[in-house]
Amino acid sequence: MNRRNFIRTGTSAAAAGVFTSAGIAAEKPTLESGSVILFQGDSITDAGRDKKNQVANEKASLGHGYPAVIGAGLLADHADLDLQVYNRGISGHKVPDLAKRWDRDCIDLKPDVLSILIGVNDIWHKLNGNYDGTAEVYRDGFAALLERTRKALPDTTIVVCEPFVLKCGAVLKGEWFPDFDTRRAYAKEVAKAADTLWVPFQDMFDEAVAAGTEPEKWAKDGVHPTGEGHALMAKTWREVVGI
Amino acid sequence: MNRRNFIRTGTSAAAAGVFTSAGIAAEKPTLESGSVILFQGDSITDAGRDKKNQVANEKASLGHGYPAVIGAGLLADHADLDLQVYNRGISGHKVPDLAKRWDRDCIDLKPDVLSILIGVNDIWHKLNGNYDGTAEVYRDGFAALLERTRKALPDTTIVVCEPFVLKCGAVLKGEWFPDFDTRRAYAKEVAKAADTLWVPFQDMFDEAVAAGTEPEKWAKDGVHPTGEGHALMAKTWREVVGI
Repeated sequence: MNRRNFIRTGTSAAAAGVFTSAGIAAEKPTLESGSVILFQGDSITDAGRDKKNQVANEKASLGHGYPAVIGAGLLADHADLDLQVYNRGISGHKVPDLAKRWDRDCIDLKPDVLSILIGVNDIWHKLNGNYDGTAEVYRDGFAALLERTRKALPDTTIVVCEPFVLKCGAVLKGEWFPDFDTRRAYAKEVAKAADTLWVPFQDMFDEAVAAGTEPEKWAKDGVHPTGEGHALMAKTWREVVGI
Repeated sequence: MNRRNFIRTGTSAAAAGVFTSAGIAAEKPTLESGSVILFQGDSITDAGRDKKNQVANEKASLGHGYPAVIGAGLLADHADLDLQVYNRGISGHKVPDLAKRWDRDCIDLKPDVLSILIGVNDIWHKLNGNYDGTAEVYRDGFAALLERTRKALPDTTIVVCEPFVLKCGAVLKGEWFPDFDTRRAYAKEVAKAADTLWVPFQDMFDEAVAAGTEPEKWAKDGVHPTGEGHALMAKTWREVVGI
Protein backbone atom coordinates (compact mmCIF):
# COMPACT_ATOMS: atom_id res chain seq x y z
CA MET A 1 0.00 0.00 0.00
CA ASN A 2 1.52 3.31 -0.98
CA ARG A 3 1.53 6.42 1.11
CA ARG A 4 -1.35 8.16 -0.61
CA ASN A 5 -3.58 5.08 -0.46
CA PHE A 6 -2.78 4.67 3.20
CA ILE A 7 -3.71 8.24 3.91
CA ARG A 8 -6.84 8.12 1.77
CA THR A 9 -8.16 4.93 3.29
CA GLY A 10 -6.48 4.91 6.67
CA THR A 11 -7.52 8.24 8.12
CA SER A 12 -10.95 9.70 7.73
CA ALA A 13 -9.69 13.28 8.06
CA ALA A 14 -7.34 13.06 5.12
CA ALA A 15 -9.78 10.91 3.17
CA ALA A 16 -12.34 13.67 3.48
CA GLY A 17 -9.77 16.20 2.27
CA VAL A 18 -9.81 18.21 5.48
CA PHE A 19 -8.44 21.69 5.09
CA THR A 20 -6.74 23.72 7.78
CA SER A 21 -8.00 27.17 8.70
CA ALA A 22 -5.65 28.53 6.02
CA GLY A 23 -7.49 26.38 3.50
CA ILE A 24 -4.67 23.90 3.10
CA ALA A 25 -5.03 20.14 2.94
CA ALA A 26 -2.88 18.22 5.37
CA GLU A 27 -0.77 16.10 3.04
CA LYS A 28 2.37 17.63 1.50
CA PRO A 29 4.68 15.99 -1.01
CA THR A 30 8.20 14.72 -0.42
CA LEU A 31 10.64 15.22 -3.28
CA GLU A 32 12.86 12.36 -4.33
CA SER A 33 15.57 11.89 -6.93
CA GLY A 34 14.08 12.50 -10.37
CA SER A 35 10.76 13.88 -9.09
CA VAL A 36 8.69 15.58 -11.79
CA ILE A 37 6.90 18.86 -11.02
CA LEU A 38 4.38 20.06 -13.61
CA PHE A 39 2.62 23.43 -13.83
CA GLN A 40 -0.62 23.53 -15.80
CA GLY A 41 -2.96 26.37 -16.61
CA ASP A 42 -3.60 29.36 -18.86
CA SER A 43 -1.67 32.54 -19.73
CA ILE A 44 -0.83 33.24 -16.08
CA THR A 45 1.08 29.95 -15.98
CA ASP A 46 2.30 30.12 -19.61
CA ALA A 47 3.87 33.56 -19.00
CA GLY A 48 5.62 33.73 -22.33
CA ARG A 49 7.28 30.32 -22.25
CA ASP A 50 8.98 28.94 -25.36
CA LYS A 51 6.52 26.33 -26.66
CA LYS A 52 8.84 25.06 -29.41
CA ASN A 53 11.18 23.65 -26.79
CA GLN A 54 9.03 22.16 -24.05
CA VAL A 55 11.77 20.57 -21.99
CA ALA A 56 12.24 20.42 -18.24
CA ASN A 57 14.22 23.01 -16.29
CA GLU A 58 15.24 25.18 -19.27
CA LYS A 59 14.82 28.85 -18.45
CA ALA A 60 12.92 29.78 -21.62
CA SER A 61 10.72 26.69 -21.34
CA LEU A 62 9.62 27.73 -17.85
CA GLY A 63 8.52 31.22 -18.98
CA HIS A 64 8.60 34.41 -16.92
CA GLY A 65 5.98 33.65 -14.30
CA TYR A 66 5.47 31.90 -10.98
CA PRO A 67 6.46 28.46 -12.41
CA ALA A 68 9.88 29.87 -13.33
CA VAL A 69 10.34 31.42 -9.91
CA ILE A 70 9.24 28.27 -8.09
CA GLY A 71 11.28 26.08 -10.46
CA ALA A 72 14.44 28.09 -9.83
CA GLY A 73 13.92 27.84 -6.11
CA LEU A 74 13.35 24.09 -6.21
CA LEU A 75 16.31 23.46 -8.50
CA ALA A 76 18.62 25.48 -6.27
CA ASP A 77 17.38 24.05 -3.00
CA HIS A 78 17.46 20.44 -4.22
CA ALA A 79 20.46 20.45 -6.55
CA ASP A 80 21.20 16.83 -5.58
CA LEU A 81 17.80 15.48 -6.68
CA ASP A 82 17.79 15.96 -10.48
CA LEU A 83 14.27 17.36 -10.37
CA GLN A 84 12.37 17.80 -13.64
CA VAL A 85 10.28 20.98 -13.66
CA TYR A 86 7.85 21.48 -16.55
CA ASN A 87 5.55 24.34 -17.52
CA ARG A 88 2.71 23.36 -19.86
CA GLY A 89 0.35 26.31 -19.34
CA ILE A 90 -1.15 27.71 -22.56
CA SER A 91 -2.47 31.23 -22.93
CA GLY A 92 -6.24 31.51 -23.30
CA HIS A 93 -7.03 28.03 -22.05
CA LYS A 94 -10.08 27.03 -20.04
CA VAL A 95 -10.98 23.73 -18.34
CA PRO A 96 -12.23 22.08 -21.59
CA ASP A 97 -8.98 23.06 -23.33
CA LEU A 98 -6.95 21.37 -20.61
CA ALA A 99 -9.15 18.26 -20.90
CA LYS A 100 -8.39 17.99 -24.64
CA ARG A 101 -4.63 17.93 -24.14
CA TRP A 102 -4.53 16.26 -20.72
CA ASP A 103 -3.05 12.90 -21.77
CA ARG A 104 -0.20 14.47 -23.71
CA ASP A 105 0.47 17.44 -21.45
CA CYS A 106 -0.13 15.90 -18.05
CA ILE A 107 -0.72 12.14 -17.70
CA ASP A 108 2.14 11.16 -20.03
CA LEU A 109 4.60 13.30 -18.04
CA LYS A 110 3.78 11.29 -14.88
CA PRO A 111 4.19 14.25 -12.53
CA ASP A 112 4.89 13.63 -8.87
CA VAL A 113 3.56 17.11 -8.12
CA LEU A 114 0.93 18.61 -10.43
CA SER A 115 -0.08 22.25 -9.97
CA ILE A 116 -3.20 23.55 -11.76
CA LEU A 117 -4.35 27.17 -12.04
CA ILE A 118 -7.39 27.43 -14.28
CA GLY A 119 -10.63 29.39 -14.36
CA VAL A 120 -10.17 33.03 -15.26
CA ASN A 121 -10.75 32.48 -18.99
CA ASP A 122 -13.77 30.29 -18.23
CA ILE A 123 -15.51 33.46 -17.01
CA TRP A 124 -13.65 36.11 -19.03
CA HIS A 125 -14.41 34.52 -22.40
CA LYS A 126 -18.05 34.17 -21.32
CA LEU A 127 -18.19 37.89 -20.44
CA ASN A 128 -16.68 38.63 -23.86
CA GLY A 129 -19.33 36.51 -25.58
CA ASN A 130 -16.80 33.94 -26.85
CA TYR A 131 -17.88 31.03 -24.61
CA ASP A 132 -21.06 29.95 -22.91
CA GLY A 133 -19.88 27.80 -19.98
CA THR A 134 -21.62 28.61 -16.70
CA ALA A 135 -20.02 28.37 -13.26
CA GLU A 136 -21.53 24.88 -12.97
CA VAL A 137 -19.95 23.84 -16.26
CA TYR A 138 -16.63 25.00 -14.83
CA ARG A 139 -17.21 23.07 -11.59
CA ASP A 140 -18.22 19.83 -13.29
CA GLY A 141 -15.49 19.99 -15.91
CA PHE A 142 -12.84 20.70 -13.29
CA ALA A 143 -14.12 17.89 -11.05
CA ALA A 144 -14.03 15.44 -13.98
CA LEU A 145 -10.47 16.51 -14.85
CA LEU A 146 -9.31 15.93 -11.28
CA GLU A 147 -11.07 12.55 -11.08
CA ARG A 148 -9.47 11.47 -14.34
CA THR A 149 -6.09 12.57 -13.00
CA ARG A 150 -6.54 10.68 -9.72
CA LYS A 151 -7.36 7.48 -11.60
CA ALA A 152 -4.38 7.75 -13.96
CA LEU A 153 -1.92 9.07 -11.37
CA PRO A 154 -2.99 7.79 -7.95
CA ASP A 155 0.29 8.75 -6.25
CA THR A 156 0.55 12.28 -7.60
CA THR A 157 0.24 15.23 -5.25
CA ILE A 158 -2.23 17.58 -6.89
CA VAL A 159 -2.08 21.29 -6.07
CA VAL A 160 -5.11 23.36 -7.03
CA CYS A 161 -4.42 27.07 -7.16
CA GLU A 162 -7.29 29.45 -6.46
CA PRO A 163 -8.30 31.49 -9.51
CA PHE A 164 -8.00 35.19 -8.71
CA VAL A 165 -8.54 38.68 -10.06
CA LEU A 166 -7.44 42.10 -8.86
CA LYS A 167 -10.11 44.81 -8.90
CA CYS A 168 -8.56 46.97 -11.60
CA GLY A 169 -8.10 47.01 -15.38
CA ALA A 170 -10.34 44.65 -17.33
CA VAL A 171 -11.96 43.42 -14.14
CA LEU A 172 -13.66 46.80 -13.63
CA LYS A 173 -15.24 46.63 -17.09
CA GLY A 174 -17.53 43.57 -16.96
CA GLU A 175 -19.96 41.81 -14.68
CA TRP A 176 -17.38 39.63 -12.96
CA PHE A 177 -19.20 39.44 -9.65
CA PRO A 178 -20.75 37.52 -8.01
CA ASP A 179 -20.12 34.90 -10.74
CA PHE A 180 -16.35 34.88 -10.17
CA ASP A 181 -16.76 34.32 -6.42
CA THR A 182 -19.08 31.41 -7.14
CA ARG A 183 -16.44 29.89 -9.41
CA ARG A 184 -13.72 30.32 -6.77
CA ALA A 185 -15.93 28.53 -4.27
CA TYR A 186 -16.50 25.72 -6.78
CA ALA A 187 -12.77 25.40 -7.39
CA LYS A 188 -12.20 24.95 -3.66
CA GLU A 189 -15.08 22.46 -3.48
CA VAL A 190 -13.69 20.23 -6.24
CA ALA A 191 -10.19 20.53 -4.78
CA LYS A 192 -11.44 19.29 -1.41
CA ALA A 193 -13.36 16.43 -3.02
CA ALA A 194 -10.20 15.34 -4.86
CA ASP A 195 -8.01 15.59 -1.73
CA THR A 196 -5.65 18.19 -3.21
CA LEU A 197 -3.56 20.95 -1.74
CA TRP A 198 -5.06 24.43 -2.12
CA VAL A 199 -3.11 27.63 -2.71
CA PRO A 200 -5.28 30.62 -1.72
CA PHE A 201 -4.12 33.17 -4.31
CA GLN A 202 -7.25 35.32 -4.07
CA ASP A 203 -6.94 35.53 -0.28
CA MET A 204 -3.26 36.37 -0.70
CA PHE A 205 -3.86 39.24 -3.11
CA ASP A 206 -6.83 40.49 -1.09
CA GLU A 207 -4.59 40.66 1.97
CA ALA A 208 -1.89 42.49 0.03
CA VAL A 209 -4.40 45.10 -1.14
CA ALA A 210 -5.94 45.38 2.33
CA ALA A 211 -2.43 46.10 3.63
CA GLY A 212 -2.38 49.26 1.53
CA THR A 213 -0.92 48.34 -1.86
CA GLU A 214 -2.62 49.27 -5.14
CA PRO A 215 -4.20 46.33 -7.03
CA GLU A 216 -2.30 47.44 -10.16
CA LYS A 217 0.96 46.63 -8.36
CA TRP A 218 0.02 42.93 -8.57
CA ALA A 219 -1.77 42.79 -11.94
CA LYS A 220 -2.04 45.90 -14.10
CA ASP A 221 -5.00 44.57 -16.11
CA GLY A 222 -6.54 42.82 -13.13
CA VAL A 223 -5.80 39.35 -14.55
CA HIS A 224 -2.14 38.95 -15.57
CA PRO A 225 0.29 39.33 -12.67
CA THR A 226 3.21 41.73 -12.75
CA GLY A 227 6.68 40.58 -11.77
CA GLU A 228 5.74 41.44 -8.19
CA GLY A 229 2.54 39.42 -8.51
CA HIS A 230 4.27 36.32 -9.83
CA ALA A 231 6.93 36.62 -7.15
CA LEU A 232 4.34 36.75 -4.39
CA MET A 233 2.48 33.78 -5.91
CA ALA A 234 5.67 31.74 -5.99
CA LYS A 235 6.42 32.51 -2.37
CA THR A 236 2.92 31.52 -1.22
CA TRP A 237 2.88 28.38 -3.40
CA ARG A 238 6.11 27.15 -1.84
CA GLU A 239 4.88 27.87 1.68
CA VAL A 240 1.64 25.97 1.07
CA VAL A 241 3.13 23.03 -0.81
CA GLY A 242 6.04 22.83 1.57
CA ILE A 243 8.75 22.13 -1.00
CA MET B 1 28.50 61.64 7.64
CA ASN B 2 26.66 58.79 5.97
CA ARG B 3 26.99 55.17 6.87
CA ARG B 4 29.39 54.19 4.12
CA ASN B 5 31.68 57.13 4.80
CA PHE B 6 31.67 56.32 8.47
CA ILE B 7 32.60 52.75 7.77
CA ARG B 8 35.23 53.70 5.21
CA THR B 9 36.92 56.28 7.40
CA GLY B 10 35.95 55.09 10.86
CA THR B 11 37.12 51.50 10.85
CA SER B 12 40.35 50.38 9.37
CA ALA B 13 39.08 46.85 8.78
CA ALA B 14 36.20 47.90 6.56
CA ALA B 15 38.27 50.65 4.96
CA ALA B 16 40.76 48.01 3.87
CA GLY B 17 37.93 45.91 2.44
CA VAL B 18 38.51 43.01 4.77
CA PHE B 19 36.92 39.81 3.57
CA THR B 20 35.68 36.99 5.74
CA SER B 21 37.01 33.49 5.26
CA ALA B 22 34.17 32.94 2.80
CA GLY B 23 35.55 35.83 0.77
CA ILE B 24 32.77 38.22 1.71
CA ALA B 25 33.21 41.85 2.70
CA ALA B 26 31.66 42.80 6.00
CA GLU B 27 29.19 45.48 4.94
CA LYS B 28 25.77 44.44 3.62
CA PRO B 29 23.06 46.76 2.29
CA THR B 30 19.77 47.65 3.93
CA LEU B 31 16.81 48.02 1.61
CA GLU B 32 14.52 51.01 1.99
CA SER B 33 11.38 52.21 0.26
CA GLY B 34 12.15 52.79 -3.41
CA SER B 35 15.59 51.18 -3.31
CA VAL B 36 17.05 50.51 -6.77
CA ILE B 37 18.83 47.22 -7.46
CA LEU B 38 20.76 46.98 -10.74
CA PHE B 39 22.33 43.93 -12.37
CA GLN B 40 25.11 44.56 -14.87
CA GLY B 41 27.14 42.22 -17.01
CA ASP B 42 27.22 40.13 -20.17
CA SER B 43 25.06 37.35 -21.63
CA ILE B 44 24.93 35.48 -18.32
CA THR B 45 23.19 38.50 -16.78
CA ASP B 46 21.27 39.47 -19.95
CA ALA B 47 19.74 35.98 -20.20
CA GLY B 48 17.36 36.85 -23.01
CA ARG B 49 15.87 40.01 -21.50
CA ASP B 50 13.64 42.25 -23.59
CA LYS B 51 15.90 45.22 -24.44
CA LYS B 52 13.14 47.23 -26.12
CA ASN B 53 11.41 47.65 -22.80
CA GLN B 54 14.10 48.24 -20.19
CA VAL B 55 11.86 48.99 -17.23
CA ALA B 56 12.13 47.91 -13.63
CA ASN B 57 10.49 44.76 -12.27
CA GLU B 58 8.82 43.64 -15.52
CA LYS B 59 9.27 39.91 -16.03
CA ALA B 60 10.48 40.13 -19.64
CA SER B 61 12.80 43.03 -18.81
CA LEU B 62 14.52 40.94 -16.15
CA GLY B 63 15.26 38.03 -18.52
CA HIS B 64 15.46 34.36 -17.62
CA GLY B 65 18.57 34.32 -15.47
CA TYR B 66 19.76 34.90 -11.93
CA PRO B 67 18.65 38.59 -11.94
CA ALA B 68 15.07 37.45 -12.59
CA VAL B 69 15.23 34.85 -9.83
CA ILE B 70 16.76 37.29 -7.34
CA GLY B 71 14.39 40.05 -8.43
CA ALA B 72 11.34 37.85 -7.89
CA GLY B 73 12.57 36.91 -4.46
CA LEU B 74 13.25 40.50 -3.45
CA LEU B 75 9.93 41.75 -4.79
CA ALA B 76 8.02 39.03 -2.93
CA ASP B 77 9.93 39.38 0.33
CA HIS B 78 9.74 43.18 0.38
CA ALA B 79 6.35 43.83 -1.20
CA ASP B 80 5.94 46.92 1.01
CA LEU B 81 9.10 48.65 -0.23
CA ASP B 82 8.36 49.43 -3.91
CA LEU B 83 11.79 48.20 -4.93
CA GLN B 84 13.00 48.88 -8.47
CA VAL B 85 14.93 45.95 -9.93
CA TYR B 86 16.74 46.49 -13.24
CA ASN B 87 18.70 44.18 -15.51
CA ARG B 88 21.07 45.93 -17.93
CA GLY B 89 23.37 43.07 -18.86
CA ILE B 90 24.18 42.82 -22.58
CA SER B 91 25.25 39.65 -24.33
CA GLY B 92 28.87 39.62 -25.50
CA HIS B 93 30.04 42.53 -23.36
CA LYS B 94 33.44 42.93 -21.79
CA VAL B 95 34.76 45.52 -19.32
CA PRO B 96 35.41 48.17 -22.03
CA ASP B 97 31.85 47.71 -23.32
CA LEU B 98 30.46 48.36 -19.86
CA ALA B 99 32.66 51.45 -19.56
CA LYS B 100 31.19 52.90 -22.77
CA ARG B 101 27.61 52.68 -21.56
CA TRP B 102 28.23 53.14 -17.84
CA ASP B 103 26.71 56.63 -17.44
CA ARG B 104 23.47 55.69 -19.19
CA ASP B 105 23.15 52.14 -17.93
CA CYS B 106 24.46 52.50 -14.39
CA ILE B 107 25.23 55.95 -12.97
CA ASP B 108 22.02 57.54 -14.25
CA LEU B 109 19.92 54.80 -12.63
CA LYS B 110 21.40 55.71 -9.20
CA PRO B 111 21.36 52.13 -7.90
CA ASP B 112 21.41 51.52 -4.17
CA VAL B 113 22.74 48.03 -4.87
CA LEU B 114 24.82 47.44 -8.00
CA SER B 115 25.77 43.88 -8.95
CA ILE B 116 28.42 43.31 -11.63
CA LEU B 117 29.37 40.02 -13.29
CA ILE B 118 31.92 40.59 -16.06
CA GLY B 119 35.00 38.87 -17.39
CA VAL B 120 34.25 35.69 -19.30
CA ASN B 121 34.10 37.45 -22.69
CA ASP B 122 37.28 39.37 -21.87
CA ILE B 123 39.12 36.04 -22.12
CA TRP B 124 36.82 34.12 -24.47
CA HIS B 125 36.97 36.75 -27.22
CA LYS B 126 40.73 36.83 -26.80
CA LEU B 127 40.93 33.04 -27.23
CA ASN B 128 38.76 33.41 -30.34
CA GLY B 129 41.11 36.05 -31.76
CA ASN B 130 38.47 38.82 -31.61
CA TYR B 131 40.05 40.87 -28.81
CA ASP B 132 43.54 41.46 -27.51
CA GLY B 133 43.03 42.50 -23.88
CA THR B 134 45.33 40.72 -21.45
CA ALA B 135 44.45 39.78 -17.88
CA GLU B 136 46.11 43.02 -16.79
CA VAL B 137 43.96 45.03 -19.18
CA TYR B 138 40.94 43.36 -17.57
CA ARG B 139 42.20 44.15 -14.08
CA ASP B 140 42.99 47.79 -14.80
CA GLY B 141 39.78 48.42 -16.73
CA PHE B 142 37.67 46.80 -14.02
CA ALA B 143 39.46 48.78 -11.30
CA ALA B 144 38.88 52.03 -13.20
CA LEU B 145 35.19 51.20 -13.66
CA LEU B 146 34.77 50.56 -9.93
CA GLU B 147 36.66 53.73 -9.01
CA ARG B 148 34.48 55.77 -11.37
CA THR B 149 31.39 54.19 -9.81
CA ARG B 150 32.55 54.92 -6.25
CA LYS B 151 33.09 58.59 -7.12
CA ALA B 152 29.71 59.02 -8.80
CA LEU B 153 27.75 56.85 -6.36
CA PRO B 154 29.54 56.99 -2.99
CA ASP B 155 26.62 55.42 -1.07
CA THR B 156 25.96 52.51 -3.41
CA THR B 157 26.62 48.97 -2.25
CA ILE B 158 28.63 47.35 -5.01
CA VAL B 159 28.51 43.59 -5.42
CA VAL B 160 31.23 42.03 -7.57
CA CYS B 161 30.39 38.53 -8.77
CA GLU B 162 33.26 36.15 -9.44
CA PRO B 163 33.58 35.23 -13.13
CA PHE B 164 33.31 31.48 -13.54
CA VAL B 165 33.44 28.64 -16.01
CA LEU B 166 32.50 24.98 -15.79
CA LYS B 167 35.02 22.52 -17.23
CA CYS B 168 32.89 21.28 -20.11
CA GLY B 169 31.70 22.45 -23.54
CA ALA B 170 33.58 25.39 -25.02
CA VAL B 171 35.85 25.58 -21.98
CA LEU B 172 37.50 22.26 -22.94
CA LYS B 173 38.39 23.60 -26.37
CA GLY B 174 40.75 26.51 -25.72
CA GLU B 175 43.65 27.54 -23.52
CA TRP B 176 41.51 28.96 -20.71
CA PHE B 177 43.96 28.11 -17.94
CA PRO B 178 45.87 29.44 -16.11
CA ASP B 179 44.80 32.78 -17.67
CA PHE B 180 41.22 32.49 -16.41
CA ASP B 181 42.36 31.82 -12.83
CA THR B 182 44.59 34.89 -13.01
CA ARG B 183 41.63 36.99 -14.11
CA ARG B 184 39.47 35.63 -11.28
CA ALA B 185 42.18 36.58 -8.81
CA TYR B 186 42.36 40.07 -10.33
CA ALA B 187 38.58 40.45 -10.06
CA LYS B 188 38.79 39.66 -6.36
CA GLU B 189 41.72 42.04 -5.95
CA VAL B 190 39.89 45.00 -7.51
CA ALA B 191 36.73 44.13 -5.59
CA LYS B 192 38.67 44.25 -2.31
CA ALA B 193 40.33 47.53 -3.24
CA ALA B 194 36.92 49.07 -3.97
CA ASP B 195 35.38 47.76 -0.73
CA THR B 196 32.69 45.70 -2.47
CA LEU B 197 30.84 42.55 -1.59
CA TRP B 198 32.10 39.43 -3.37
CA VAL B 199 29.96 36.53 -4.58
CA PRO B 200 32.18 33.45 -5.05
CA PHE B 201 30.45 31.85 -8.05
CA GLN B 202 33.49 29.81 -9.12
CA ASP B 203 33.91 28.39 -5.63
CA MET B 204 30.19 27.63 -5.57
CA PHE B 205 30.21 25.71 -8.86
CA ASP B 206 33.47 23.96 -7.96
CA GLU B 207 31.87 22.74 -4.74
CA ALA B 208 28.77 21.55 -6.61
CA VAL B 209 30.91 19.53 -9.01
CA ALA B 210 33.09 18.21 -6.19
CA ALA B 211 29.88 17.00 -4.54
CA GLY B 212 29.32 14.68 -7.48
CA THR B 213 27.25 16.60 -10.07
CA GLU B 214 28.24 16.83 -13.72
CA PRO B 215 29.54 20.27 -14.84
CA GLU B 216 27.00 20.17 -17.70
CA LYS B 217 24.20 20.27 -15.16
CA TRP B 218 25.22 23.85 -14.33
CA ALA B 219 26.32 25.14 -17.76
CA LYS B 220 26.06 22.90 -20.81
CA ASP B 221 28.60 24.89 -22.82
CA GLY B 222 30.76 25.65 -19.79
CA VAL B 223 29.88 29.35 -19.85
CA HIS B 224 26.11 29.96 -19.95
CA PRO B 225 24.27 28.57 -16.92
CA THR B 226 21.32 26.23 -17.19
CA GLY B 227 18.15 26.91 -15.22
CA GLU B 228 19.74 24.96 -12.37
CA GLY B 229 22.88 27.08 -12.65
CA HIS B 230 21.03 30.38 -12.52
CA ALA B 231 18.93 29.14 -9.62
CA LEU B 232 22.02 28.21 -7.61
CA MET B 233 23.64 31.57 -8.43
CA ALA B 234 20.55 33.43 -7.22
CA LYS B 235 20.52 31.52 -3.96
CA THR B 236 24.20 32.19 -3.27
CA TRP B 237 23.92 35.86 -4.27
CA ARG B 238 21.10 36.42 -1.80
CA GLU B 239 22.97 34.64 0.98
CA VAL B 240 26.10 36.73 0.40
CA VAL B 241 24.39 40.08 -0.11
CA GLY B 242 21.97 39.40 2.74
CA ILE B 243 18.85 40.80 1.11
